[in-house]
Amino acid sequence: MTHEQLFQIIQKKRSFLCIGLDTDIQKIPSHLLETEDPVFEFNKAIIDATHDVAVAYKPNIAFYESMGMKGWESLGKTVEHIRKTSKDIFIIADAKRGDIGNTSAMYAKAFFNTYNFDAITVAPYMGQDSISPFIAYKEKWSVILALTSNAGAFDFQFIEDEVSGKKLFEKVLETASTWATKDQIMFVVGATKAEALTDIRKIVPDHFLLVPGVGAQGGSLQEVAKYGLNERCGLLVNSSRGIIYASKENDFAEIARQKAEETRKEMEVYLRQNHLI
Amino acid sequence: MTHEQLFQIIQKKRSFLCIGLDTDIQKIPSHLLETEDPVFEFNKAIIDATHDVAVAYKPNIAFYESMGMKGWESLGKTVEHIRKTSKDIFIIADAKRGDIGNTSAMYAKAFFNTYNFDAITVAPYMGQDSISPFIAYKEKWSVILALTSNAGAFDFQFIEDEVSGKKLFEKVLETASTWATKDQIMFVVGATKAEALTDIRKIVPDHFLLVPGVGAQGGSLQEVAKYGLNERCGLLVNSSRGIIYASKENDFAEIARQKAEETRKEMEVYLRQNHLI
Repeated sequence: MTHEQLFQIIQKKRSFLCIGLDTDIQKIPSHLLETEDPVFEFNKAIIDATHDVAVAYKPNIAFYESMGMKGWESLGKTVEHIRKTSKDIFIIADAKRGDIGNTSAMYAKAFFNTYNFDAITVAPYMGQDSISPFIAYKEKWSVILALTSNAGAFDFQFIEDEVSGKKLFEKVLETASTWATKDQIMFVVGATKAEALTDIRKIVPDHFLLVPGVGAQGGSLQEVAKYGLNERCGLLVNSSRGIIYASKENDFAEIARQKAEETRKEMEVYLRQNHLI
Repeated sequence: MTHEQLFQIIQKKRSFLCIGLDTDIQKIPSHLLETEDPVFEFNKAIIDATHDVAVAYKPNIAFYESMGMKGWESLGKTVEHIRKTSKDIFIIADAKRGDIGNTSAMYAKAFFNTYNFDAITVAPYMGQDSISPFIAYKEKWSVILALTSNAGAFDFQFIEDEVSGKKLFEKVLETASTWATKDQIMFVVGATKAEALTDIRKIVPDHFLLVPGVGAQGGSLQEVAKYGLNERCGLLVNSSRGIIYASKENDFAEIARQKAEETRKEMEVYLRQNHLI
């Protein structure tokens, strides 16, 4: 999927919502535990209820990996179900991988070939050759960590480079944006640091940003839209717990849809205000 | 396993060799492909042939993940087989994980509980709260990326902090070494940067360092030992392809043992020279 195709889906759905599938077997409604694959059944219900208001889903790989083989099976079925349900969905493996070349190549194969993801989140610490095996898949995206939404972001991401005076996350944006075109690279910028988006947009005016941290982590959608929207939207805002766990009862999918639709409606307002639809 | 227990195993085996299980189904001897689980059969043969000369094994998780569920099954059986074969082995999941707290907690559960690893490699970019869920497992280790062995290490790891004049990897060593004791934290330092070990030992004199990059990547064991050994050895030197793929014929396990034993003998010399045995 290209940058332009992603924007077209956003326009069509009047939404830039990404739903995080952080599916934890200890948090899903108890009646699902009687099914053969509770994690998949939960995801399926969420997907069936929300696929027309979300532009992307982002399974959080740790949640599946922690369940061993069973988890990987649920993950595979989830991606397959999304593909079967809609062609207008961008699927991100939130995996935060990054390793030496031959190892990253194996991860790329895992997420792009074995599972059929459009994109994977990657960590920049090891530099260009740790990301290039992902970029070698021309139809696929690398979503590179820049400024994260957690408290630990302050440990290293704000270190200022003696030579350029730039912060580490700014160096990451500046350097990594040269590794491929905006059709293959996206950056993670936490919603909890929305005020930084003005400066970030000076470095990467055209790139899509994946923005976690709205909802449970306290970030504001309004602020993110105000400082982050560009002329092709350029934002995918993720919400996980705030949508998928909004109800823990039998009506969980219905309530998830209500929450997702509320968020989408707010997004539609910002898209209109910026003349993007 | 504590820092002191790890040193005792090193003394007993006169070795600080870690064997990397980067097991690629396309590189293993063809006669194994007829077995039900070729990746496990390969690992089993390597382990049976080398467990008395190696102090650690390091399965490279990407290689298993790229095979989907089948790969995770092979991984689980491999860890189990190591545990059954010897009590004197340290097992590292080379996974390079690191994410926000609740996600890292899931990875910790996966590698420390579901699979029974002693340690996991983690990426420092997201800071302390991305690592603390791993450190919460008191008997387990976090092996934090500091200075990696690949070319991309120069992209960000050498950025010099305007305030302290320290390089990013030095800040990582300095900061992360305060997150837990040397019984729980180890650092990755690539063998291809052996000359940096003198300065690194000024920052972390007592910590164990996991050193990849000897062999296929061109690092020198002699240089690593010269600059990296401390009074409790403090080194685990990894070799993967140089040992496990030394022969692609039926004699692969035997040749792997020969290569491992050659390396161990060289290590024994350095241990003696430094009065560690």
